[in-house]
Amino acid sequence: MTRPSGRRPDQARDLRITRNFTCHAEGSVLIEVGNTRVLCTASVEESVPPFLRGKGQGWVTAEYGMLPRSTHTRSAREAAKGKQSGRTQEIQRLIGRSLRSVTDLAALGERQITLDCDVLQADGGTRCASITGACVALHDALTGLVKKGLLPANPLRELVAAVSVGIHEGRPVLDLDYDEDSNCDTDMNVVMTASGGLCEVQGTAEGVPFTRSELNALMDLAESGINGLIAAQRRALEL
Amino acid sequence: MTRPSGRRPDQARDLRITRNFTCHAEGSVLIEVGNTRVLCTASVEESVPPFLRGKGQGWVTAEYGMLPRSTHTRSAREAAKGKQSGRTQEIQRLIGRSLRSVTDLAALGERQITLDCDVLQADGGTRCASITGACVALHDALTGLVKKGLLPANPLRELVAAVSVGIHEGRPVLDLDYDEDSNCDTDMNVVMTASGGLCEVQGTAEGVPFTRSELNALMDLAESGINGLIAAQRRALEL
Amino acid sequence: MTRPSGRRPDQARDLRITRNFTCHAEGSVLIEVGNTRVLCTASVEESVPPFLRGKGQGWVTAEYGMLPRSTHTRSAREAAKGKQSGRTQEIQRLIGRSLRSVTDLAALGERQITLDCDVLQADGGTRCASITGACVALHDALTGLVKKGLLPANPLRELVAAVSVGIHEGRPVLDLDYDEDSNCDTDMNVVMTASGGLCEVQGTAEGVPFTRSELNALMDLAESGINGLIAAQRRALEL
Amino acid sequence: MTRPSGRRPDQARDLRITRNFTCHAEGSVLIEVGNTRVLCTASVEESVPPFLRGKGQGWVTAEYGMLPRSTHTRSAREAAKGKQSGRTQEIQRLIGRSLRSVTDLAALGERQITLDCDVLQADGGTRCASITGACVALHDALTGLVKKGLLPANPLRELVAAVSVGIHEGRPVLDLDYDEDSNCDTDMNVVMTASGGLCEVQGTAEGVPFTRSELNALMDLAESGINGLIAAQRRALEL
Amino acid sequence: MTRPSGRRPDQARDLRITRNFTCHAEGSVLIEVGNTRVLCTASVEESVPPFLRGKGQGWVTAEYGMLPRSTHTRSAREAAKGKQSGRTQEIQRLIGRSLRSVTDLAALGERQITLDCDVLQADGGTRCASITGACVALHDALTGLVKKGLLPANPLRELVAAVSVGIHEGRPVLDLDYDEDSNCDTDMNVVMTASGGLCEVQGTAEGVPFTRSELNALMDLAESGINGLIAAQRRALEL
Amino acid sequence: MTRPSGRRPDQARDLRITRNFTCHAEGSVLIEVGNTRVLCTASVEESVPPFLRGKGQGWVTAEYGMLPRSTHTRSAREAAKGKQSGRTQEIQRLIGRSLRSVTDLAALGERQITLDCDVLQADGGTRCASITGACVALHDALTGLVKKGLLPANPLRELVAAVSVGIHEGRPVLDLDYDEDSNCDTDMNVVMTASGGLCEVQGTAEGVPFTRSELNALMDLAESGINGLIAAQRRALEL
Repeated sequence: MTRPSGRRPDQARDLRITRNFTCHAEGSVLIEVGNTRVLCTASVEESVPPFLRGKGQGWVTAEYGMLPRSTHTRSAREAAKGKQSGRTQEIQRLIGRSLRSVTDLAALGERQITLDCDVLQADGGTRCASITGACVALHDALTGLVKKGLLPANPLRELVAAVSVGIHEGRPVLDLDYDEDSNCDTDMNVVMTASGGLCEVQGTAEGVPFTRSELNALMDLAESGINGLIAAQRRALEL
Repeated sequence: MTRPSGRRPDQARDLRITRNFTCHAEGSVLIEVGNTRVLCTASVEESVPPFLRGKGQGWVTAEYGMLPRSTHTRSAREAAKGKQSGRTQEIQRLIGRSLRSVTDLAALGERQITLDCDVLQADGGTRCASITGACVALHDALTGLVKKGLLPANPLRELVAAVSVGIHEGRPVLDLDYDEDSNCDTDMNVVMTASGGLCEVQGTAEGVPFTRSELNALMDLAESGINGLIAAQRRALEL
Repeated sequence: MTRPSGRRPDQARDLRITRNFTCHAEGSVLIEVGNTRVLCTASVEESVPPFLRGKGQGWVTAEYGMLPRSTHTRSAREAAKGKQSGRTQEIQRLIGRSLRSVTDLAALGERQITLDCDVLQADGGTRCASITGACVALHDALTGLVKKGLLPANPLRELVAAVSVGIHEGRPVLDLDYDEDSNCDTDMNVVMTASGGLCEVQGTAEGVPFTRSELNALMDLAESGINGLIAAQRRALEL
Repeated sequence: MTRPSGRRPDQARDLRITRNFTCHAEGSVLIEVGNTRVLCTASVEESVPPFLRGKGQGWVTAEYGMLPRSTHTRSAREAAKGKQSGRTQEIQRLIGRSLRSVTDLAALGERQITLDCDVLQADGGTRCASITGACVALHDALTGLVKKGLLPANPLRELVAAVSVGIHEGRPVLDLDYDEDSNCDTDMNVVMTASGGLCEVQGTAEGVPFTRSELNALMDLAESGINGLIAAQRRALEL
Repeated sequence: MTRPSGRRPDQARDLRITRNFTCHAEGSVLIEVGNTRVLCTASVEESVPPFLRGKGQGWVTAEYGMLPRSTHTRSAREAAKGKQSGRTQEIQRLIGRSLRSVTDLAALGERQITLDCDVLQADGGTRCASITGACVALHDALTGLVKKGLLPANPLRELVAAVSVGIHEGRPVLDLDYDEDSNCDTDMNVVMTASGGLCEVQGTAEGVPFTRSELNALMDLAESGINGLIAAQRRALEL
Repeated sequence: MTRPSGRRPDQARDLRITRNFTCHAEGSVLIEVGNTRVLCTASVEESVPPFLRGKGQGWVTAEYGMLPRSTHTRSAREAAKGKQSGRTQEIQRLIGRSLRSVTDLAALGERQITLDCDVLQADGGTRCASITGACVALHDALTGLVKKGLLPANPLRELVAAVSVGIHEGRPVLDLDYDEDSNCDTDMNVVMTASGGLCEVQGTAEGVPFTRSELNALMDLAESGINGLIAAQRRALEL
């Protein structure tokens, strides 16, 4: 019994990280996870949202979007519909929380960094790819602030990355593509730091509920997958 | 070192479930978890949303809202602002998924049940209370369809309930109230069925990331808490 | 010829006023008029809307909502539709005007009190119940400001209450319930103060227009009904 | 003590009704009441809104708007703000109800007539002028349907008109202009048919509440004012 | 081969400009171009939009709307739909640019003038009529500022007007009415100043593309048409 | 006096057209014009919008968007703001019209093709690049329909492309980049077919109005520029 892609259960998809993909943003990363491609840009703004003004700390936030034809069939453009779906909002809240969990917001000072994650081509796992790519873009933007003398040191405490795992035809597998994702019983997204700290664990039974031992097997797969992603981030950043 | 409420780490809040709280809905439950009070109504509609028409199955969905002054300070009314927040949409998607995971949608036939969960008074844990209360309202609505002869048997496969757990001042605790929730390092919502199957595990590090062993301790607490909730649902439903 | 409820033409429904129904608001009243149940909360804010800034006076305003399943069949949630209906806006403007007409806004100082009237269960007369209940919540909130030493005296000049009257099957009747309201020829809402001053008279012919003498008969009924409501407000407030 | 305009207390403003003011609509009336000018068009559509389909009756509805600079200072354009104010919705509901109360909707058949009332210049009393003018436009549109052989007889049962009355500096006065309207204690709009039937009575105390005897005096003034308006409608329509 | 209206190819429609059509605005012009009638008001506000604050210059902007029944069949009211169409926004941007191109914004000082162009009756060419009429309203508003001593001289550098031209049944024609506009191959709007400077040239092939020599023929027609419009503006303004 | 980029007045920017840039769309083209990069996808849908149903013809339409950080400083995401700007709507209407002008809609049959033009990186001329790139994507999508046997022949009558020209520091120049575009007196976009037919001519004076002879010089530049673009389209399509 093989996966639709022919991958082994613990085999992640090929990963490619291209820095400076576009020229205006302070950080700009194209991340390719198999056929999933997300453009992640980091924009620095020298002010913070109203609820933080005068508190001497910074903010990191994220926005997420899919190009209308990034998917198999065209989806309506959210700007034309006049609102972002619940799914979009849920994803951008997740990306923002994940990156804030590794950033020293006090050390950032009263500035905001916005991570825009725009999916050019979708084949499953876009939210995880967004987190992994946005972390590299954020690192670049923060390094830029250090180089300009605006910050004494990079306030990113450590790298963070994310992967999806799931139970597909009764078996735990790593890094679901669209075919697996739309057919699996349980789908879990895990966000973890370089030092192995968990930032987010979001497991959902699409059909049959899952057990504690399945949860453990999925967590094991996710940890090994994320270690691979963080190694790739380090290579891309030449750290 | 005690909890703000004086509860033991593994002690849940007092729970009260009042059925038939209002008179029009097919199911109407007031659930009180400590000072958190949520009115959960189940409304049966003899049609399904467009994407399911003609597929011979039903649908269960949920909507969530907080009365403007259910909270310590007044929040703006979402109807007046003209849109639901990302948080609201995330919660109502979670409630809907949780209840669908225990409902035999094919057995329900081409009808939709909407669970409205409206928070009258908030003191932490409103999404979990909503799931636990909505399950009872859904049971009542489905029993009503059986009594009317519209269904041969209740399509609810088993009961489902939810609880929050978290790491507060370094210690895993069960069933966070507002004081704990706004101060804890890690916050996790767990949705589990009567037979111990996991529907949702959503853990978030608000500050310091958490470890695998903390994840396990939280899962243990959550399981024991949910078993208590399901016993209370059974008593309320006289099952 | 009797009324659907069996009441006499000049007989109001049973009334119950519960103060401190929820715990966070400065005033919180559950008013039950027959089967109609409205939760009225008063929230004090230490600032005024922009058009009043620096004018040395306060403001009293109201918002109104119906829970989706407060009615016989479920209505769409206004927060989900993204806008408040014309009916909702008309009602909340009426509640606000009625309460401002008995409040000494200059004596209130530069603060705003918002009355949220949320219908938990509807059986006709929700706007009138909202006004009658909100007046008690407002009284509690203002008394609280006096107790805290923020105001020298309660700026509520007198109590105000509201009732509906109508011509049902050719006969003037007091306090319409849903069955009567959806079948009557003329429907009139009257808002009156404890001293008998009229704040609002809103009569509408749903079918056949009404005459001056019918208008007079309806006004007589309304006056006697409101006197009963104000007596009940006094008992609830122990005045 | 005179009125700002020098009019007697029971003196209405000059009235001018111009039919066929624009060329496309089935009825098009410019009504001028003193300096208030409203363009009222009636548009016939050969279908009814969804809630009436197949019920064998017609519908009459209204929309209301003010041009941004119809007022002393420019108001924001509602189309640009993206929503109609509560006041706008309240007024267009009032106009629609008033005209439906004199139309035999069954005789109209399954068609809808929309009355658009657009204020070109405002000097108080725009909602009353809208009703009075829209009645003439509706009459013209219905006559047109008779002339085309689509209806055997005009389904307008009788004419209807509206006027505002109020208590200004302690004295009941007829037909308030802007100066009086923004300064009066009580403001009342009365909608009455040619045969003296009351369709709407909407009295509001802006400051001091009003008494039953003031209500009576205002009703007397309104009746005489509306009789004058209906005579003018008859002249304009050559009835 | 004649035009539907019987006009010669180079013959414009009758033009009428009525100043002071309404009483509140600083400039108020009714422009009638054949059966097209647009009310153009100029409103002066003693502040500028945020992006210009403190820059020592003024701003001229425009808004455009069509009354729902200005057209052959009723169009939905944009305020009720909750948004302005792309066409509306395109037109109001064009009107604003055209008028700014002849106004010395620095000389205007930190104030804004808003031109509201509302179509009372439409028969083609409403955007061009709006520009031509708004220019007269703007002149009146600016003259008013000079008369009040708020400006030393009128900052309008010169008059500006607009006309549509098109290729109808193979022949270039001036000033399209609705019948021609809805049937022509190419439609071009030209905005030109009194001294012959071009502000806007917007040509669109609705069907077959057009040639350079057709472009030239259309420009010739437009120039002669605009000269006639500017002569009429001068007469209206008694310049 | 040289251009900021050092180009000659009649020198266009380097152009690169990459087909099949993403994998799901029926046509997918990345067009790079200097530093401007736009992803143009063509999506085929086997139905037409309501206004065309049953008329035996197809439709071609376009949507346009800029990624938030495609520009020098981050712009707000239109999906988050809840509406598309006037500029966005104007551009997508222009793209749609341009492509419809070269498509035989009757030959297309009852299907719709949507061109999504999303700007990844902006350096001036994004609307022109969108048209030029979308034409190639449209060609690919139509060729695909022919290959699948759904159409007997490609309904694209001829290629179409667009370029901007302008008067910069008094001199007509071809293909404005951002530096020139934000500083030029006149900006004109020209859309032309392979056979030299004009689809759109949109010239705007940003500052000083322009003359007929400048219009002619700009048209000459545009024609030569578009001929170059169409040659590049042919090479990319191997025609």
